[in-house]
Amino acid sequence: MIRFQLTNEFIEQVEKLIEDRNDEALTTLLQEYHFADIAELLGELDSDEATYIVKLLDSEVTSEILIELDDELREQILDNLTPSEIAFELNEMDTDDAADIIAELDDHIQKQVIDQIEDPSHAADIVDLLRYDEDTAGGLMAKELVRVKETWTVAGCVREMRRQAENVTRVHSIYVTDKAGKLKGRLSLKDLLTAHERTHISEIYIPKVDYVNVHTEANEVARVMQKYDLEAIPVVDDNGILVGRITIDDIVDYIKEEAERDYQLAAGISQDVEADDGLFKQTKARLPWLLIGMMGGLGAATIISNFEIILNDFPKLLIFVPLIQATAGNVGVQSSAIIVQGLANDTLKGKLFARIIRETTVALVNGISIAIIVLLISHFVFYTSYLESLSIGIAIITVIIIAAIVGNLIPLFLYKKGIDPAVATGPFITTSNDVFGIFTYFLIAKLILGF
Amino acid sequence: MIRFQLTNEFIEQVEKLIEDRNDEALTTLLQEYHFADIAELLGELDSDEATYIVKLLDSEVTSEILIELDDELREQILDNLTPSEIAFELNEMDTDDAADIIAELDDHIQKQVIDQIEDPSHAADIVDLLRYDEDTAGGLMAKELVRVKETWTVAGCVREMRRQAENVTRVHSIYVTDKAGKLKGRLSLKDLLTAHERTHISEIYIPKVDYVNVHTEANEVARVMQKYDLEAIPVVDDNGILVGRITIDDIVDYIKEEAERDYQLAAGISQDVEADDGLFKQTKARLPWLLIGMMGGLGAATIISNFEIILNDFPKLLIFVPLIQATAGNVGVQSSAIIVQGLANDTLKGKLFARIIRETTVALVNGISIAIIVLLISHFVFYTSYLESLSIGIAIITVIIIAAIVGNLIPLFLYKKGIDPAVATGPFITTSNDVFGIFTYFLIAKLILGF
Repeated sequence: MIRFQLTNEFIEQVEKLIEDRNDEALTTLLQEYHFADIAELLGELDSDEATYIVKLLDSEVTSEILIELDDELREQILDNLTPSEIAFELNEMDTDDAADIIAELDDHIQKQVIDQIEDPSHAADIVDLLRYDEDTAGGLMAKELVRVKETWTVAGCVREMRRQAENVTRVHSIYVTDKAGKLKGRLSLKDLLTAHERTHISEIYIPKVDYVNVHTEANEVARVMQKYDLEAIPVVDDNGILVGRITIDDIVDYIKEEAERDYQLAAGISQDVEADDGLFKQTKARLPWLLIGMMGGLGAATIISNFEIILNDFPKLLIFVPLIQATAGNVGVQSSAIIVQGLANDTLKGKLFARIIRETTVALVNGISIAIIVLLISHFVFYTSYLESLSIGIAIITVIIIAAIVGNLIPLFLYKKGIDPAVATGPFITTSNDVFGIFTYFLIAKLILGF
Repeated sequence: MIRFQLTNEFIEQVEKLIEDRNDEALTTLLQEYHFADIAELLGELDSDEATYIVKLLDSEVTSEILIELDDELREQILDNLTPSEIAFELNEMDTDDAADIIAELDDHIQKQVIDQIEDPSHAADIVDLLRYDEDTAGGLMAKELVRVKETWTVAGCVREMRRQAENVTRVHSIYVTDKAGKLKGRLSLKDLLTAHERTHISEIYIPKVDYVNVHTEANEVARVMQKYDLEAIPVVDDNGILVGRITIDDIVDYIKEEAERDYQLAAGISQDVEADDGLFKQTKARLPWLLIGMMGGLGAATIISNFEIILNDFPKLLIFVPLIQATAGNVGVQSSAIIVQGLANDTLKGKLFARIIRETTVALVNGISIAIIVLLISHFVFYTSYLESLSIGIAIITVIIIAAIVGNLIPLFLYKKGIDPAVATGPFITTSNDVFGIFTYFLIAKLILGF
């Protein structure tokens, strides 16, 4: 496979063809490319040009392109389309993608679009999906699936499958239901291929099947599908009726988005922002966290100015404020990140108390190592007095231990309260540890130096 | 589906049964559970107990369990097994998993194990896979796949598929090759089901097929499979011969591992470490980064002690050192995280210069906002002089701009040099920005206050 590389020449060529309204050449050129590549191209065009291409190409292709686009660009393009043009695109989409896109439209347009969808059962399926919260199995599932009844024969089943397969892009699994539609199990393709024509499905299906309820949370669905290596999972309603299925590609997207969000939170960026986003979006995503950091800095300033005696009599202690601050921040981030990840992966086992003991031990080893180095350097390089050096060393150990315990407890506390523990990493924990660390440092100095 | 919950009672029950050597009850109890659940259970047992269960249960189940286990525990269990016992497990595994596990064994045991694998072609396939680097398509692929020749008829094809399907757990795609084994395209199951028995495959196969070369890097494979929504991708050698296929579940694992590694690097943890890991592993993963932070702290100490005039004549400026430091660190992490993520997702487009301009503008807006607040507070709350306040304000703006640009450039520089840019986030960038920020602060104060 030749890797598609979006070049400036290609973009310019397309822009020129749009300008010239040379539809024939444009269609011929673009039909060579995969829809995902065309979506990438549209991301580099302005919204009018992108709309032009969406209107030009076949809806079989553009429906796929629309799904791939950035939310923002898609919104701009959809704004330029009439309800019937949008409905035309939705005709070609799987129900889950169609429902996601309808959900993005304004309420009054939603109705107009749904009314113009050609196939009434496709429209009804989409409307049904709109009922579910997007972070649940119901919000992730598609209605398209291959279902067979346990009373059928293999021959009848193959006949039915051929018919159903028309609407299903990829056959992941064949689900078996009873007459009422209740999920009973699944059928392996291998067994279907090797069984005799007149065998009944009830004799060959596998009754053990993993499934989720429409209300199961998305992260639980992701966890189950990963843990049990599933490529698709059926979704049932509260009565056990098979209503849809979730495929692994939706879960891949979900996992990636979650990981990116956690990463951004840890870095102090509060929403989905990319390097190429505009000034307003960037500022909105970044400034709030910098303000938290600023508050911490002002807190630290208050503490330092309140220990006036240090400013006056032990100014050398101030030299090590940045070191204390950096250490407290780094330890806090390390500890909290491990807990956040453990919570996300559901790998956090054992007792809280045992974990705190282990964390304290690790902190003690790290703390003593760093304290000895700094104590020696402060005394021999920066000529601090014995007692000053001792204060610095003991402060480092104490600060590391406290920062580690705080870093452990805050995410756990947030998690218990139902708040996403990932917000606890990054600037939040650094800032609180900064202030806390400096205060602890000065307090220990006060005790040891006796001022 | 009832969610499996690993309870202490269950663990104790299993441990008791192992102690009593009650094999029958143990087998009956465990056969109710999915292999992934049993793997979770083994994670809570000691290695002797875990080995006992692996030896007890059927290798069809234990081979799956072994794949799911933590590297460490698996190593301990394999140490307790003879080469022929290990070979017995490998018989049941797909070639990709078997190769991964063999690669973990000592060289002299590897050979003994391979010699004892029952099926010589399975053994040969595994040996073949061992040649590839684990971060390439060759290292990720499995040999199991369904391949048909273009010259066959539909009837012959179905016959062959039944035979081949024996060795393939899940049929993802049917690949079509020429007589020499060169990949020609793929066959849709739908077309196979609906075509006439005597139709030739050459008439109905789809010649457009995405594929990767054995040497393609793993992250490129992940990118392609995600972008084009593929659930499996065929792998060819340098001559275009079909040699294996990669399935999406391996990519899901890869994506998760990469995301976790980046997250840990950003948090200053240098290897795969979990909350429940032991003291040595935790210290090894965390201490190096704390030492980097310490170096930064000592650098800051050097700078402060060299500006003795500030210590003596403008001690109030020292009050704001933590604020400057925290701000520089936070801005640096934000900027670098956005770039690291852009590089990882391949979404970084446009010119470097334009990006630097945009980043500088964002930094300017954030900087001015924070500077005004701090300038006012420093003057009215901390009673700094006009010139001192001005120094602080200007320093904040300058530091934010520099930190943003540095945060942008360092990951890009590392990326160009072939180093993983993710190492540039976290303690690394915080530390350098700390030192840099404080130096800039004092320099600006020196210029404005004229000492």
